[in-house]
Amino acid sequence: MKARVYVSMKKTVLDPQGQTIQSALNGLGHKSISGVRQGKFFEMDLAAGMSREDGAKELDLIAREVLANPVMEDYRVELID
Amino acid sequence: MKARVYVSMKKTVLDPQGQTIQSALNGLGHKSISGVRQGKFFEMDLAAGMSREDGAKELDLIAREVLANPVMEDYRVELID
Repeated sequence: MKARVYVSMKKTVLDPQGQTIQSALNGLGHKSISGVRQGKFFEMDLAAGMSREDGAKELDLIAREVLANPVMEDYRVELID
Repeated sequence: MKARVYVSMKKTVLDPQGQTIQSALNGLGHKSISGVRQGKFFEMDLAAGMSREDGAKELDLIAREVLANPVMEDYRVELID
């Protein structure tokens, strides 16, 4: 089973990296970009034969405790096939 | 209009950061994780009134020329509403 975990800053938290990318893009002539927020994602392979339910539970735990900082970041888990 | 651009290492390129995360997760007891690859994504706001077609074209250009390194990385553009 494959899965993706997406981690991004909460909407209420300032994202200076995204702002820098936005002003760089505007400076390069891409004036239509009015906002950028950056995030990261993790593509994971899970052991074969794991049930979707167990996989989702495990990934939620991993996302919350290891990959994301729940104080500042939101995460989203997506199971693929 | 909102859009997301996903950038990740090509499958054929080694991803040491992903490998490190995988061995850390295994060390923490998450033995079911057999592979991790890390990527980044950019959530973009586009100027109102832009057509989907123009938006897709603009974002493809931005992804190819600014956000991703096409030698080592793949990208994917996703338009939202």
